[in-house]
Amino acid sequence: MSADLCFASDNAGPVHPAILDALTQANRGRAMPYGADDWTARAVAAVRETFEAPRAEVLLVPTGIAANALALATLTRPWSRVFCTDIAHVELDEAGALGLASGGAETALVPSVHGRMAGEALAARAAAEPAARRGAISVTQLTEAGTVYTLDALSALAEVARTHGLPLHLDGARWSNAAVALGCTPGEMVRAAGAAALSLGASKAGAMGVEAVVLVDPPPGLADEARLRRQRMGLRVSKHRYLAAQLVAWLEGGLWRDMAETANMAALRLAHGLAAHPAVTLDHPAEGNMVFARLTRALHRRLRAAGAAYYPSDLPEPDLDSGADGAPLGARFVCDWATDAGRVDALLAVLGREEEGDGPRAPRAV
Amino acid sequence: MSADLCFASDNAGPVHPAILDALTQANRGRAMPYGADDWTARAVAAVRETFEAPRAEVLLVPTGIAANALALATLTRPWSRVFCTDIAHVELDEAGALGLASGGAETALVPSVHGRMAGEALAARAAAEPAARRGAISVTQLTEAGTVYTLDALSALAEVARTHGLPLHLDGARWSNAAVALGCTPGEMVRAAGAAALSLGASKAGAMGVEAVVLVDPPPGLADEARLRRQRMGLRVSKHRYLAAQLVAWLEGGLWRDMAETANMAALRLAHGLAAHPAVTLDHPAEGNMVFARLTRALHRRLRAAGAAYYPSDLPEPDLDSGADGAPLGARFVCDWATDAGRVDALLAVLGREEEGDGPRAPRAV
Amino acid sequence: MSADLCFASDNAGPVHPAILDALTQANRGRAMPYGADDWTARAVAAVRETFEAPRAEVLLVPTGIAANALALATLTRPWSRVFCTDIAHVELDEAGALGLASGGAETALVPSVHGRMAGEALAARAAAEPAARRGAISVTQLTEAGTVYTLDALSALAEVARTHGLPLHLDGARWSNAAVALGCTPGEMVRAAGAAALSLGASKAGAMGVEAVVLVDPPPGLADEARLRRQRMGLRVSKHRYLAAQLVAWLEGGLWRDMAETANMAALRLAHGLAAHPAVTLDHPAEGNMVFARLTRALHRRLRAAGAAYYPSDLPEPDLDSGADGAPLGARFVCDWATDAGRVDALLAVLGREEEGDGPRAPRAV
Amino acid sequence: MSADLCFASDNAGPVHPAILDALTQANRGRAMPYGADDWTARAVAAVRETFEAPRAEVLLVPTGIAANALALATLTRPWSRVFCTDIAHVELDEAGALGLASGGAETALVPSVHGRMAGEALAARAAAEPAARRGAISVTQLTEAGTVYTLDALSALAEVARTHGLPLHLDGARWSNAAVALGCTPGEMVRAAGAAALSLGASKAGAMGVEAVVLVDPPPGLADEARLRRQRMGLRVSKHRYLAAQLVAWLEGGLWRDMAETANMAALRLAHGLAAHPAVTLDHPAEGNMVFARLTRALHRRLRAAGAAYYPSDLPEPDLDSGADGAPLGARFVCDWATDAGRVDALLAVLGREEEGDGPRAPRAV
Repeated sequence: MSADLCFASDNAGPVHPAILDALTQANRGRAMPYGADDWTARAVAAVRETFEAPRAEVLLVPTGIAANALALATLTRPWSRVFCTDIAHVELDEAGALGLASGGAETALVPSVHGRMAGEALAARAAAEPAARRGAISVTQLTEAGTVYTLDALSALAEVARTHGLPLHLDGARWSNAAVALGCTPGEMVRAAGAAALSLGASKAGAMGVEAVVLVDPPPGLADEARLRRQRMGLRVSKHRYLAAQLVAWLEGGLWRDMAETANMAALRLAHGLAAHPAVTLDHPAEGNMVFARLTRALHRRLRAAGAAYYPSDLPEPDLDSGADGAPLGARFVCDWATDAGRVDALLAVLGREEEGDGPRAPRAV
Repeated sequence: MSADLCFASDNAGPVHPAILDALTQANRGRAMPYGADDWTARAVAAVRETFEAPRAEVLLVPTGIAANALALATLTRPWSRVFCTDIAHVELDEAGALGLASGGAETALVPSVHGRMAGEALAARAAAEPAARRGAISVTQLTEAGTVYTLDALSALAEVARTHGLPLHLDGARWSNAAVALGCTPGEMVRAAGAAALSLGASKAGAMGVEAVVLVDPPPGLADEARLRRQRMGLRVSKHRYLAAQLVAWLEGGLWRDMAETANMAALRLAHGLAAHPAVTLDHPAEGNMVFARLTRALHRRLRAAGAAYYPSDLPEPDLDSGADGAPLGARFVCDWATDAGRVDALLAVLGREEEGDGPRAPRAV
Repeated sequence: MSADLCFASDNAGPVHPAILDALTQANRGRAMPYGADDWTARAVAAVRETFEAPRAEVLLVPTGIAANALALATLTRPWSRVFCTDIAHVELDEAGALGLASGGAETALVPSVHGRMAGEALAARAAAEPAARRGAISVTQLTEAGTVYTLDALSALAEVARTHGLPLHLDGARWSNAAVALGCTPGEMVRAAGAAALSLGASKAGAMGVEAVVLVDPPPGLADEARLRRQRMGLRVSKHRYLAAQLVAWLEGGLWRDMAETANMAALRLAHGLAAHPAVTLDHPAEGNMVFARLTRALHRRLRAAGAAYYPSDLPEPDLDSGADGAPLGARFVCDWATDAGRVDALLAVLGREEEGDGPRAPRAV
Repeated sequence: MSADLCFASDNAGPVHPAILDALTQANRGRAMPYGADDWTARAVAAVRETFEAPRAEVLLVPTGIAANALALATLTRPWSRVFCTDIAHVELDEAGALGLASGGAETALVPSVHGRMAGEALAARAAAEPAARRGAISVTQLTEAGTVYTLDALSALAEVARTHGLPLHLDGARWSNAAVALGCTPGEMVRAAGAAALSLGASKAGAMGVEAVVLVDPPPGLADEARLRRQRMGLRVSKHRYLAAQLVAWLEGGLWRDMAETANMAALRLAHGLAAHPAVTLDHPAEGNMVFARLTRALHRRLRAAGAAYYPSDLPEPDLDSGADGAPLGARFVCDWATDAGRVDALLAVLGREEEGDGPRAPRAV
């Protein structure tokens, strides 16, 4: 792999220096473990302020799957179904974490267009489920397809949630990219969705490794239950100050917004470059920090030869070498806080201008 | 709390500068997430070499409960019972993590003396269990009482494991303190126990936050299963190089041994000081980095007034203020890699020489 | 409800006198519990002979959900997905029994036509699933839509199972109706499907309450594991001879075939009668003992007024009274071993010949 | 086995003719499945009247393990511990059903004397458990040792339950034997214990196969939750009238009391006979329908040779043939509703009067 051409994941990027520096600051002396330290108090305050949620309970955890599973297990019962899209991370990528954490809850799939479920589609799916098994709604913002729900779109989902008395969970693995894309505050986003819980992602956004479950305004007892669940899931980190310090550095001064803007701008530049290529089409609008494009096999080979890193976006994963004239194949390119214009242009340069025909001329964009 | 008098936990101590520095080194450029990076390869090699286990599979996880639950779930079935002592961490402190991770496995308690179970006691308990429900044996080394199993004692447990065809799990949250106490290599310790799996603790020993499940010589397929379990437990850390770098810095040059020696020596100094005090007795031999002592309530109050931090060791937790003439109360004092003689002496100075009577004159030591 | 017009379920019908009589015979003297009795040995032999499966292990259980959950939990792992149709009983009606019994396995839905999944559809869905999560295939025969898979159709599913090395489970809640519809032996049906396990239903077919998990030719140890699972699921019936006696009476002399033929013939008569009605259409071919028809709301009201009992087949369940001119509504009519021609004709007589228009003239049949 | 000398289990006995007859009566015509039938309504009314619990919710299930697991899963949370004796059925005989049904709850053992836990012992064990993990108390009445809790003893346990706000569960697999032994009404027994839930056993008492979970006075919603749990555990029996009819025949006219009296009287006769034998001692007072005795190996061999059936009561199960002069071995003899004096005397006759010495002269009784 050429590190310069790595667009595989926002998990592949480096930690922002300010966040790394916070770890050094946090390393002074002794501090009580498991969250009874000053850094944790500051981190909780920073989350509440960022999301304008003064009564929020904040539980730090080490991974995003952990945050989703803990949040959803806390909001549901073992026999619940969680309504989410057919490409939701919780459905495709978590190896049954929901079922394990909750003792049996499972997904109920709502069809999606460009990664988003419409309020009507959600309403129809929820209505078809026996009432006793309706558990929660999980909405990924930024979606797994790199698109955003507008505040209106979130409100439409919230309306379905209210109709059935269901809690709504926001999978915010890329919430900062979404907030920047919408030009709104994080609080506006969470309120529009009427979210009961948020998986607050920081790792993909440039932290070293910290996520959080945010219970926005939990009824009495629920946060204690969530803390107990966190412990028995093995997710309660002992040297807690080091998790907290990352959040403090990222949130307190608004650093998160600058970082997300850089990532989103890089993705937009990449999307424009790809869409302009005659042998490339975009699969989804590039509204955050990810670009889903469809390239001829010849282009894929060219990228591979240059050491570019990215994941295919088709399931099952196609065999790139099965034939020169096969259908174009999908790819996901992810930009992070450290992806600048030069890095994007380097990738585009590898693709060049396709002159000779490899595959049908595809339409330009979505 | 006075940071200088904090003996609450080895989780309260700072990260060793060499380990913190490794994080900065690891932060160069991009690296594929989820373990497909060079630092992870180095960490795995360092674990194999340290434990003289060339075929070991090593899975990094963020917490010690996670390591225990993942290891035991991998070694057992949902209907299994895991034989452990009545004060095992897995029994008292993990809030049912074993049952959650395994889908129902539970503990079967073996009586302990100073935190250790004897081979005979284990054999008797195992024989009383229906064969179908015998799952695994979990041995904590250093024990939760701060004592060590000798290599012979481990071998006696291993013999019971062999008799019943049971895998043996070492909860090595403080394995380095144990190895130093025994004056043996880590490999000798693991071999004496015939361990199938080890929970390798690094956080308590001075890392920022990394533990590992080590499958010593797993049969084909078991490591893949464990990896899948790790993912669905939400324990697969995305930016994996930062976990790995900590292990590399700690293990590669033998830094772990120096750090454990410092902690053990501090505990020994503290134990001697406490045992010499006329109003203090030791509950257990202090063989590693922890000291369990029984102090009069007056002494507890004096420590508290001075800002000393430590946990009571009696269950249920007694009310310190219930009466001046109550029975002496137990306390756990933990030393870490940064606890030097001065720090120990400062604590002892608070206790002073008890002249006036508060509580009965207690016998000197165990 | 008018018992004469009850077509709600084959669970509503009476127990066949020969089966009831067997319970009296079984009630002589004492017999060791939990299956260590002569009746159980005879029942196991009868199952093996009926299904031409001499190495089959047979576990009696009290319910059909129990049989499915036990069979699938035994064949899969907690992280498995079970491929089944979107209308499978295991998906719609079991309230998450699969997830509970297995510790987390869940369904992966394959589109169905008339209740059947095609080999191609199954192959496509299986290929889209990560290999580690492919667990088993569950095929309902007779389907929930009242149709049968031909032996060729079963073989096509078996081929997909072989390709991926997956065990195939037959949900045989109505296996006898299916075998009669196909005119084949039960063994031919199971062999065509290459079934590793069968949920053998007897209750719906005219027993009082007994089902079985049949492991057709299990590898060593699997049956013991299934027995342990049965116990911890609370499904091991103590006075086992009374379950066994029902199977003996039903299977030994081939009574099952006569009973299923009666039920299927009644359903065929009903289907013809309904299809001939100008205001009724059939939703699915009536190949077993169930008829799915679509009736105008006026007809539904007429049936209801006459005391007829049956379940609606639309999800979510529609409001019959929401409007006289709504779309026709689906209904499921089930015939059992005691449904004779007169009973069918009585139901058809209630429907009469639709003269006045209530709802659009519907096309006649599928 | 000689059926005349079968004292293995009350599950080995026949069904009472009146109960068998009720099945025939219930077999008339069609009835809606899953409890929506008249027999079920009568059975629920009979349970409420028998236990003087007009607001009780009654859920029929097929087995006793099912009843215990369903009741305890409904009363607790996945991280709960259930306090019970060290010989409780839920601890020793249910293969982890509690953990499976609840998603992780486990037992916390209280020492017992003759199968009973004292209020003080329960209080001490409960106090040692962290509050968040205290789930419920499970009390077996009649105990697994064949003894009864007096109403006062039950009240002492109820007091502990109230102190900690814990629900108390009565495992009433042999509740009728206990009520007869105490000479009280079932309602008095349940009230003395302040029971929130009762596992109502009928199978051992002479039914064919039916048990029930009785929620004595549940808060709103709990019964619905329990019904959903019952379904997903595979414990909701379709042809429900046949379960219900058994309870009706057994409870409505007080037949249960006559049957339990017969069984208890037989056990008392057997206990006297055994205690009078010079080579036999009783391990526990025989207060219900079970006798726990300790016999020389020679006597065991004599019983075996005569075809007597009973279970050893020592764990691990001893090898009867390991030596003529070994220590006496424990045995459990169970009487049922059909065990008359002649049957008891036949067993005693096999034992005879021990003249020649085989084993030490044992003291007479407890």
